[in-house]
Amino acid sequence: MIYLDNAATSFPKPETVYKAMENCISTYCANPGRGSHAMSIKSALAINETREKIASLIKVRDSLNICFTKNATEALNVAIVGSLKEGDHVITTCMEHNSVLRPLKTMERYNRIKLTIVNADSLGRIDPFVIKRHINKRTRMIACTLSSNVNGIIMPVKEISRVAENSGVLFLLDASQGLGSVEVDLEKMYVSMLAFPGHKGLMGPQGTGGIYVSPDVKLKPIMSGGTGSRSEYLYQPEQLPDRFESGTLNTPGIVGLGAGVDFITKTGVKEIKRKKDELIKRLLDGLKQNKSIKIYSPENVNENSGIVAFNVNDTDSSEICAQLDKRYSIECRSGLHCAPLAHKHFNTSKIGMVRLSVGYFNTLYEIDNTISAINRIIYDKVN
Amino acid sequence: MIYLDNAATSFPKPETVYKAMENCISTYCANPGRGSHAMSIKSALAINETREKIASLIKVRDSLNICFTKNATEALNVAIVGSLKEGDHVITTCMEHNSVLRPLKTMERYNRIKLTIVNADSLGRIDPFVIKRHINKRTRMIACTLSSNVNGIIMPVKEISRVAENSGVLFLLDASQGLGSVEVDLEKMYVSMLAFPGHKGLMGPQGTGGIYVSPDVKLKPIMSGGTGSRSEYLYQPEQLPDRFESGTLNTPGIVGLGAGVDFITKTGVKEIKRKKDELIKRLLDGLKQNKSIKIYSPENVNENSGIVAFNVNDTDSSEICAQLDKRYSIECRSGLHCAPLAHKHFNTSKIGMVRLSVGYFNTLYEIDNTISAINRIIYDKVN
Repeated sequence: MIYLDNAATSFPKPETVYKAMENCISTYCANPGRGSHAMSIKSALAINETREKIASLIKVRDSLNICFTKNATEALNVAIVGSLKEGDHVITTCMEHNSVLRPLKTMERYNRIKLTIVNADSLGRIDPFVIKRHINKRTRMIACTLSSNVNGIIMPVKEISRVAENSGVLFLLDASQGLGSVEVDLEKMYVSMLAFPGHKGLMGPQGTGGIYVSPDVKLKPIMSGGTGSRSEYLYQPEQLPDRFESGTLNTPGIVGLGAGVDFITKTGVKEIKRKKDELIKRLLDGLKQNKSIKIYSPENVNENSGIVAFNVNDTDSSEICAQLDKRYSIECRSGLHCAPLAHKHFNTSKIGMVRLSVGYFNTLYEIDNTISAINRIIYDKVN
Repeated sequence: MIYLDNAATSFPKPETVYKAMENCISTYCANPGRGSHAMSIKSALAINETREKIASLIKVRDSLNICFTKNATEALNVAIVGSLKEGDHVITTCMEHNSVLRPLKTMERYNRIKLTIVNADSLGRIDPFVIKRHINKRTRMIACTLSSNVNGIIMPVKEISRVAENSGVLFLLDASQGLGSVEVDLEKMYVSMLAFPGHKGLMGPQGTGGIYVSPDVKLKPIMSGGTGSRSEYLYQPEQLPDRFESGTLNTPGIVGLGAGVDFITKTGVKEIKRKKDELIKRLLDGLKQNKSIKIYSPENVNENSGIVAFNVNDTDSSEICAQLDKRYSIECRSGLHCAPLAHKHFNTSKIGMVRLSVGYFNTLYEIDNTISAINRIIYDKVN
């Protein structure tokens, strides 16, 4: 089996992730931050260790500004629903995932906000100046992805964040794609809120994710409930991270995420990117030889977070993926990847795209086999 | 170590839970319901198997009416925030957890709903007739816990649900405490929404839970985002369970939960209750010999979901728990247990309660040791 669906969920995880989770759940996994007994304290400490590790990875001074959520979608909803007020104007891009588009479109539908969705260039790149041109005095937020989950293009988020900073508007960074292999340094970049999943580039398990909330930003929670803090108080507490961590957290998952981040820190974000670049380069070099293949991803690996999206003439992407799966056990993804406007942009709403997304554990040998398999599938289609 | 904090998180889990999770995460854990490749399909099938198992446990005909959430708190927020409209009247009880009280109090605070909190009797029991008396024509929901997380009292939920049914109002059952050892049969009881955690009586891992939504009930989601379905659509889809399952689900957690539910089904809910009853009886019999101990939990095990809550004279509960932990490695919980109104009711807001909560894997030997330890702590305090 060759796994090339890392943009959805990275697989496999480092062995240390499995071990940390197994150890947690079978030896000390009590309720974190609720009891004061040894296991409960150990669970709470383990969660806060992961918090520290993520803070250190993205250069956040106070790890308490990082709140754990079940996935990046919850984090994005907290950021969007929690910060926007009646009459606000928001600028986002056609390259966003439904986890950004749906909350925004829903608020727009009920006339709560005005929404501008800026277009991209032929590679899916967003021009910060186009965003700047749309800013008006009601603009309250710019929401942009770090990198497209459709074709892997890395966005000029530093420049976009500067536009937000200079205009005094919130900048929401959806770091779902790229974090772990694309450098994100919050000491060097203005970010009001950053949403991240644990199960993709951070190499943790599913069921984890989080939101960084800048100390300047006040957000309303989208849920309230037990926090283990201020139990006597009948409303949601103000302090972070409790404000956004109602109910029992996913301790074994968060512990696994901590081990994933450890692996990244030890290996180095740059080294992970270098390895992925090498795989992407080989994949691109191989696929572009075949004239039936149209590639949508950037050739310049500095602009690519680890995805090669393509189609074979006008064949439905699901047909190619099904053949890769059934004939070669190559696991990748077809369809719209929950990003409908990106496909509208690329004119692929009907057939979708075949998306190959590499991870640190893929090998050049796997890439070569994948190229051969695709060529063979195309050959068999024609002949 | 003796673990008596099962009302917070059950521990240990059946061995099969660890094995199922380990197998899932290390061999097939791709994105469920997103890709169409073998691993993705296997993950989606595994999630739906757990859905079926839970449906069969609580006797729900169509498992698609069960949606997975990160914990019971999210489920309760979906039920409360998603169903109530401006001007609605809600009846709940003083025995509820903050996961019910905080969302309701928050809606009341912003004048969106009227809230009646009914009182309990000396054992924390809620009288269905008291609830009935408070129903008026604006009443839209009755929200009640299956069993108190403070003292373990099992509520007369069948009778309360009948009041709701006869009055044509929604019945929200918080099954956080009791599910897995207290029979819950939705074929025999009117329930509009049922919220459950995975990590307590269902013996699954943290990071899991869900909501059952009756086919008659329409709920607004509290989040929107990618669902892997209707990707081209820029709003949250209507169909269950997708409507409430935005973003990547916690596949390994849900698989573990499935193994937990299997264990319960194989062992039998009645047998689990019988075993817990035996432990509770022994604990109560032992503790009531000591005149310094005041017990708040029901002596009749038919009314007790597995908790003995007590205090030692007017000693702060945290002092007793700390000694149990440090001197005897007995892990239990002190304080308010996120249920402030219950403590107001029992007049224990200041000192809280020591809560011993048993699980299926506790032994009579552990219970005897716990009784001795408590007696010894009390003896040392006096002498």
